[in-house]
Amino acid sequence: MNVLVVHAHPEPQSFCTALKNRAVEALENQGYGVTVSDLYAMKFDPVSGPADFGARKNPNYLVYALEQRQGQETGTLAPDIRAEIDKLMAADLLILNFPLYWFSVPAILKGWIDRVLISGLTYGGRRFYDRGGLTGKRAMLSLTCGGREHMLDANDSIHGRLTDMLKPLLQGTLAYTGMTVLPPYAAYHVPYVDDAVRAGYLADYAARLADLDALAPLSFPSLDDFDEQMRPLARRPNGE
Amino acid sequence: MNVLVVHAHPEPQSFCTALKNRAVEALENQGYGVTVSDLYAMKFDPVSGPADFGARKNPNYLVYALEQRQGQETGTLAPDIRAEIDKLMAADLLILNFPLYWFSVPAILKGWIDRVLISGLTYGGRRFYDRGGLTGKRAMLSLTCGGREHMLDANDSIHGRLTDMLKPLLQGTLAYTGMTVLPPYAAYHVPYVDDAVRAGYLADYAARLADLDALAPLSFPSLDDFDEQMRPLARRPNGE
Repeated sequence: MNVLVVHAHPEPQSFCTALKNRAVEALENQGYGVTVSDLYAMKFDPVSGPADFGARKNPNYLVYALEQRQGQETGTLAPDIRAEIDKLMAADLLILNFPLYWFSVPAILKGWIDRVLISGLTYGGRRFYDRGGLTGKRAMLSLTCGGREHMLDANDSIHGRLTDMLKPLLQGTLAYTGMTVLPPYAAYHVPYVDDAVRAGYLADYAARLADLDALAPLSFPSLDDFDEQMRPLARRPNGE
Repeated sequence: MNVLVVHAHPEPQSFCTALKNRAVEALENQGYGVTVSDLYAMKFDPVSGPADFGARKNPNYLVYALEQRQGQETGTLAPDIRAEIDKLMAADLLILNFPLYWFSVPAILKGWIDRVLISGLTYGGRRFYDRGGLTGKRAMLSLTCGGREHMLDANDSIHGRLTDMLKPLLQGTLAYTGMTVLPPYAAYHVPYVDDAVRAGYLADYAARLADLDALAPLSFPSLDDFDEQMRPLARRPNGE
């Protein structure tokens, strides 16, 4: 099994970076091949735009998704995108490792998603969710945050549930491309906890990675339940 | 009233850019002062990191939020951040105008959020939601997307509700800082609709902007309902 860890923290001594390092160690100990894209270390450019394409299908009007398809077909995507796509396609498991910024990924990681998960390859037309281009791969978020767990663990928690806050990532990105999405790993209250708690987080995370098959994947829509126009075949009473 | 429109689309001829232009026109026609931050045109750098700070509180270990506070207090934030903060603080209404990328903002706009909505000024400690630093301002998302409205308008729609997908932005970002959040304006199926439909979207959007007071703001948590540890004072039966 090959694993791609995409890591996005500006401080190499951070606990978030320690989580990434522990993941690499735990996965390599099991004999997995591990590749890390350390976006800050790579100075990864997160801005999608015309410079992402060598030969444009339409040089006068940029439709980003259409140029992604064209760039993939003609092999003219920017080399930094191409390199990340190659790592992604070689991976059986994708881990996005990041500090929660505004209940989402830092911009540098959002740009990896915007630029690397290209149309035509990872999704396109009616190929999304369980018909997405990355079916067969697994994906997981591992994140650090400043809030306490009880602020994110129930519908009436102050921020609601973490999985609801992460819906654009869990469903709208990872599941959208067809990947099997494992529950996110979150280390809470990180700036305020002591070394013993941090060591506990690292041990918990390593134990989770040592037994990935024990994790029940999250559930997402199946295109089997929608018609050609993507309307539900059977409406639930609470649908409207 | 002053309005700040933060716009993020790489194609100046795009319909998303037309929405931005129509907003400027509609708001100026009402006598509002309008400022636009066109992030692609500005080549805005979305990557948060050590270069955002002149004099560091701790040069050996970057805690981004703490350095934001220090940078604000000492006037040593990077000039591009300072300029955006000044525009934001002068605004009564903030509009984020963007194409929906992976059910969220493009990376260049996520970076504006990461770098400009600084700790200490827009939130901090127990100052968030209705005690956030930007109370008294209003905020709105205006976005274009490829999907059809029926794919995002009900709990059993294939992607669920748009407002649930946008929760990290609507609640986790705009409401978190204390702003009053107006319902998002979304133009659907944009790459596939004809000019008449697009003209209709522009007219609808201008009409909405001409009568902002008619829009009922979205509802979000109040800190009045939570204790000092941010636990709910009264648990709802469905909370757990």
